[in-house]
Amino acid sequence: MPPLEEEHMEPVAEQIKYILSPGSIAIVGASSDFTKFTGRTLKYLLKHGYKGKIYPINPKYDEIVGLKCFPSIEALPECVDTAFIQIPSKGVASVIKECVMKGIKGVIVHSAGLAETGEEGRRKEQEIKGMTAGTAVRLVGPNTAGVANIVESVILTPVVAYELDELTPGRIGLVSQSGGLTGALLTRAEARGIGFSYIISTGNEMDLEASDYMRFLIHDPHTDVIAVFLEGIRNVEKFYGAVDLAHEKGKPILVLKVGRAEVGSRAAASHTGALTGSDAVYDAVFKQRGIVRLEALEDLFEVSSLFSKYRPPKGTRIGMLTTTGGGATILADACGVLGFNFPKPSEETVRVSSQWLPDFASTANPLDVTMSGVGGGYSKSLDLFLRDENFDIIIAVVGTSAQFEPEMGLKAILERDKTIDKPVVSFLNPNAEKALRLLEREGIPTFRTPEACARALRYLVDYGRFLEKDSMVKVTPPARPSPDLVGIRKLLSSHQTPLNEYQSKVILAHYGIPVLKETVATSPEEGMAIAQEIGFPLVLKVLSPDILHKTEARVLKLGIVSEEDFRKAYKEILENAKRYKPDARIDGVLVQEMVQGGTEVIVGVSRDPQFGPTVMFGLGGTLVEVYQDVSLRVAPLTRTDAEEMVDEVKGSVLLRGYRGKERGDVEGLIDVILKVSRLAMDLREEVMELDINPLIILGEGSGVKAVDALIVKKDVNNLKTEAS
Amino acid sequence: MPPLEEEHMEPVAEQIKYILSPGSIAIVGASSDFTKFTGRTLKYLLKHGYKGKIYPINPKYDEIVGLKCFPSIEALPECVDTAFIQIPSKGVASVIKECVMKGIKGVIVHSAGLAETGEEGRRKEQEIKGMTAGTAVRLVGPNTAGVANIVESVILTPVVAYELDELTPGRIGLVSQSGGLTGALLTRAEARGIGFSYIISTGNEMDLEASDYMRFLIHDPHTDVIAVFLEGIRNVEKFYGAVDLAHEKGKPILVLKVGRAEVGSRAAASHTGALTGSDAVYDAVFKQRGIVRLEALEDLFEVSSLFSKYRPPKGTRIGMLTTTGGGATILADACGVLGFNFPKPSEETVRVSSQWLPDFASTANPLDVTMSGVGGGYSKSLDLFLRDENFDIIIAVVGTSAQFEPEMGLKAILERDKTIDKPVVSFLNPNAEKALRLLEREGIPTFRTPEACARALRYLVDYGRFLEKDSMVKVTPPARPSPDLVGIRKLLSSHQTPLNEYQSKVILAHYGIPVLKETVATSPEEGMAIAQEIGFPLVLKVLSPDILHKTEARVLKLGIVSEEDFRKAYKEILENAKRYKPDARIDGVLVQEMVQGGTEVIVGVSRDPQFGPTVMFGLGGTLVEVYQDVSLRVAPLTRTDAEEMVDEVKGSVLLRGYRGKERGDVEGLIDVILKVSRLAMDLREEVMELDINPLIILGEGSGVKAVDALIVKKDVNNLKTEAS
Repeated sequence: MPPLEEEHMEPVAEQIKYILSPGSIAIVGASSDFTKFTGRTLKYLLKHGYKGKIYPINPKYDEIVGLKCFPSIEALPECVDTAFIQIPSKGVASVIKECVMKGIKGVIVHSAGLAETGEEGRRKEQEIKGMTAGTAVRLVGPNTAGVANIVESVILTPVVAYELDELTPGRIGLVSQSGGLTGALLTRAEARGIGFSYIISTGNEMDLEASDYMRFLIHDPHTDVIAVFLEGIRNVEKFYGAVDLAHEKGKPILVLKVGRAEVGSRAAASHTGALTGSDAVYDAVFKQRGIVRLEALEDLFEVSSLFSKYRPPKGTRIGMLTTTGGGATILADACGVLGFNFPKPSEETVRVSSQWLPDFASTANPLDVTMSGVGGGYSKSLDLFLRDENFDIIIAVVGTSAQFEPEMGLKAILERDKTIDKPVVSFLNPNAEKALRLLEREGIPTFRTPEACARALRYLVDYGRFLEKDSMVKVTPPARPSPDLVGIRKLLSSHQTPLNEYQSKVILAHYGIPVLKETVATSPEEGMAIAQEIGFPLVLKVLSPDILHKTEARVLKLGIVSEEDFRKAYKEILENAKRYKPDARIDGVLVQEMVQGGTEVIVGVSRDPQFGPTVMFGLGGTLVEVYQDVSLRVAPLTRTDAEEMVDEVKGSVLLRGYRGKERGDVEGLIDVILKVSRLAMDLREEVMELDINPLIILGEGSGVKAVDALIVKKDVNNLKTEAS
Repeated sequence: MPPLEEEHMEPVAEQIKYILSPGSIAIVGASSDFTKFTGRTLKYLLKHGYKGKIYPINPKYDEIVGLKCFPSIEALPECVDTAFIQIPSKGVASVIKECVMKGIKGVIVHSAGLAETGEEGRRKEQEIKGMTAGTAVRLVGPNTAGVANIVESVILTPVVAYELDELTPGRIGLVSQSGGLTGALLTRAEARGIGFSYIISTGNEMDLEASDYMRFLIHDPHTDVIAVFLEGIRNVEKFYGAVDLAHEKGKPILVLKVGRAEVGSRAAASHTGALTGSDAVYDAVFKQRGIVRLEALEDLFEVSSLFSKYRPPKGTRIGMLTTTGGGATILADACGVLGFNFPKPSEETVRVSSQWLPDFASTANPLDVTMSGVGGGYSKSLDLFLRDENFDIIIAVVGTSAQFEPEMGLKAILERDKTIDKPVVSFLNPNAEKALRLLEREGIPTFRTPEACARALRYLVDYGRFLEKDSMVKVTPPARPSPDLVGIRKLLSSHQTPLNEYQSKVILAHYGIPVLKETVATSPEEGMAIAQEIGFPLVLKVLSPDILHKTEARVLKLGIVSEEDFRKAYKEILENAKRYKPDARIDGVLVQEMVQGGTEVIVGVSRDPQFGPTVMFGLGGTLVEVYQDVSLRVAPLTRTDAEEMVDEVKGSVLLRGYRGKERGDVEGLIDVILKVSRLAMDLREEVMELDINPLIILGEGSGVKAVDALIVKKDVNNLKTEAS
């Protein structure tokens, strides 16, 4: 086994390193037929120059390609570091038992046919789990396509992509929850001259999971960027832990996550529940944790390569040089759509470059250097652009010469002034694989398409913004006044679910969230007494757990300004309730102060089965579900999270003095969002969903008020939802 | 010259065919140095096997590569079909003069340095124009990268991409307003086995323009799909003509248009003007005319290839087969995001396939055929899927075998049942150029990335929907009552711009657009008389050409229910007007009926400098500019256009009985949109911008009412806009 790196690694990282850098390997189910997958693992191990000892295991052979073959793990003359199991699923458990007995610490189970195939397979996995529990064995898979340590040439996988004659070691560590993709990504990246440090297929993650491999790569000195293909997270806390470690070590995590196309929206009693899909929660987690969410398959290596080569630029100002008009036009267009801009070069750049450029060209950006008609124009212009403080990013576009005469076409880029620390990326207009490879190997991130180039730069800029923000203090502010949790829990347990509006707001008030002055009346007389105390104008509402949409049911009356109004309305809304739903339970009539003016927003909580309580913010009114103009974060929230939530909602312009409207009390809104986050965390065992809808935002300094609210408790059996 | 095709072509198409299929060619500025662009035109003409006569022209040589060289066009022994000019710009005019004298009908001017470089260049172009006006000469360029007739191997361009040894003839005709892109697209498409019929760089379009080349390709029997890279349209009517011809001949037009990133929004007096950017107008034109608007560079050949191979499918139901899990997952995710679905296979398919598939696999879609563990599973499953009526589209995904053993990996796809007319496309998971080429040549559209595959299928489905719609009668309905144009023009000319609300609505009323009952008062007494005639509740507004945002200025009072209210409000709003803008001109106070309930929308007109009047529809209220949830069409509109405009706006759900709300009078809305379109066409010389904001949509059958309106006339000198 090669010596461990100097740096101290935590146990799980060391265990993975041990598996990936073994001094000896047993291949259980090895075959001499190198065209079959059973032969390929051995073939690739040898082909790519593995230096350690290899023990093929197969009772049918005495030797395979000159290596002595053993009938079983038990029969091995020594304990190997790593066992690779590729026999049919039914035999896996007993081989693992042998491994445990032998003292083998690393087991890679390539065999499929386990949990992914149904009940019987899950039972088999449980059996294996029982066998390894409490032992030192760490297990990769089952159903893994295998693992490749490219840095040290330990290729332990039958994936056909390793037929490639050469593997370029790179600084990108790849973790994939799909085995098939590891081969695809390897061959696609190799064709571009982009290399990986490790490629790990996680399989069914019975033991080691994506987060563990991420931790290993974060510690690994050969890896700068962690690229992950994700179908789902197994353990949220472990995932968070890995991400925090990555930030600590300054290594970006780039994730391509599938599951964006969700079938329909969830059935939920609250607006918040209906608006919060599980993919949206992943999005929120990625934003909060500074994980770059990729869009396209090839982003996994193209964007990773960019991140491994450059730190984020300071801004979005691009200086572009090109030898071809069309390619630059499309690329500039794609960048413009993503918010980049193309300022004029500085006066100094114009002054100097006018020595070799015609007048109409010297102030251009994108600059078509073929206009210069002078040799060396590209090279001189590139260095000027690099030094120009008007540009944060330089893009060098090359035309057809990149394909047919790459050395000449790329000369200017390859010989650029390397002392200037500013991202230089390249887009090649023609089909030019050789040139793409050449540039990548010389440290220039390259892109096959204008769209990918623009997107990648956007990711890098956004990541830089996260880092800036992240350097600020990020703490969840304490709630004041500190709520009486025991009392609140008691109160909650005394109510049926969903809580009615009044009950819900009492809970909110316990968290210091401003609510309306209001009381429940059970007779017109009692109501009038309350009315006199609160003062006109008033609002009357029928309280019923069976009527969720009050406007629809016409059990809500605004603008009551006199006793006469009051008595009439009281009678009318009770009659409407009866008509709308004859068997509706009526808890009374809510007499409530009427708030005038302000802007309606919605703040809510819903519960993700994996990530727990999430907080949503959006503009109120009927359109919230139409435009889905809402923002989401996983609780607990920091102040920065709350501020970003407000900023992310387009409709928030209405709170910022839009078109002469009074500015809203955004400070009060942020305070409520943070208090709701606190409530969501405190009561995460009890509260399933919460809507404050509307929360009225009054003028700046005048506060906010929860006008209506709904809390859905966990005992879902009692929950009735209406067909809406 | 080769014989013309049988089909009768119109003159411009024949003229272009003449230039692209010449029996003899003169190259003016030819050189024997094949590494320079001056030598390359001749090199490529010979290399790709041009069969006609070539006359190099250059006073410096007697012969070039064995061809006799002439000092000038004049000196030629005969009149050639096409002259290709590649000398410095200063000499171009005199060479063209010689061409005219000699009777040459086709001239390709590769020389740059003309209109694109500034004033002096534009002057030179004018000179050339003068020379060719009234002659039979048709001119390609100047500043064209050249033209390639790949069907007949006439390559007339120095673009280095033609260093390629072989050019695959295909059925895609490419027209590009960028010369540089022609080479890039050729090399990229060739690498994929996708061929073109013609590749035409249009240059500065001094004479022949993009629309002309499109017409040629539409007539051309070797071309099925027209792919266009567009920077802008020169002549709208010619463009429309070409597009109509394409539909008539059943040839799709696919356009990649740059200019999506517009810098800021326009300064405009109306909401409509502010919301209508020029790229949005292109979008509208493309939608109305059934032009497929592409997003990405490689779409120009990938999507074109799909369109050339298949007619649009009947629906969005995909059946997917794969040999690799990961690639299929990503592709299914990308398709799902674009609205495709993956239904279960039919019972028949399940029944038959369960003969070779395990239970858990036989109902799967995407179906991982490696689960079958049986040779031939892919092939049998593919034919079953092809015949399965639950699927409109079949996607065949292939894993790493496509790269290392393409013949084996692709066997099932290549040997599919070809008698079934259902789109089959393929995505290859690894880097597999050879396999991509093989499939394309066998008639299977292929995609390098999952994202491109999903997008291309979406284009094809959307195109099919356009064709279905297009088969309906598409006429602009006549306006009833037929408006008195002379009277309206007179009225318009008597007003200053912008017209006030009252004046604007009078014009609307002439078009039969329902407006409020209202009259202008100049004193409180006069106002009260009007009020009694209209009846309470009422609205009062100060009319002033200098106050555009009435709410902001507080010169608007709603809900006036008594004479007392009336007198108080009358005084107050006039005072507010004075305070808001002391020097504002006051035209009086508008006394107007008050409409209650309904939904506010906005219908407007703005004017695109190229495409003329456009009609916009959106939901009203403060949020229209925040969400930009508006739809746009170029006038005149058909009824289908108007219906689509309503459907396209997300907020239109509010008109369709959303959440218990009463259904709105959509019929009345569509009627107003069509009347506005008529007004916009009739008064296109006078009206620059029009807002009906809000137009109130009452309940179904109860009609609609224009509550406020603004017309901006053409004499912009008098137009004052407020800082908002």
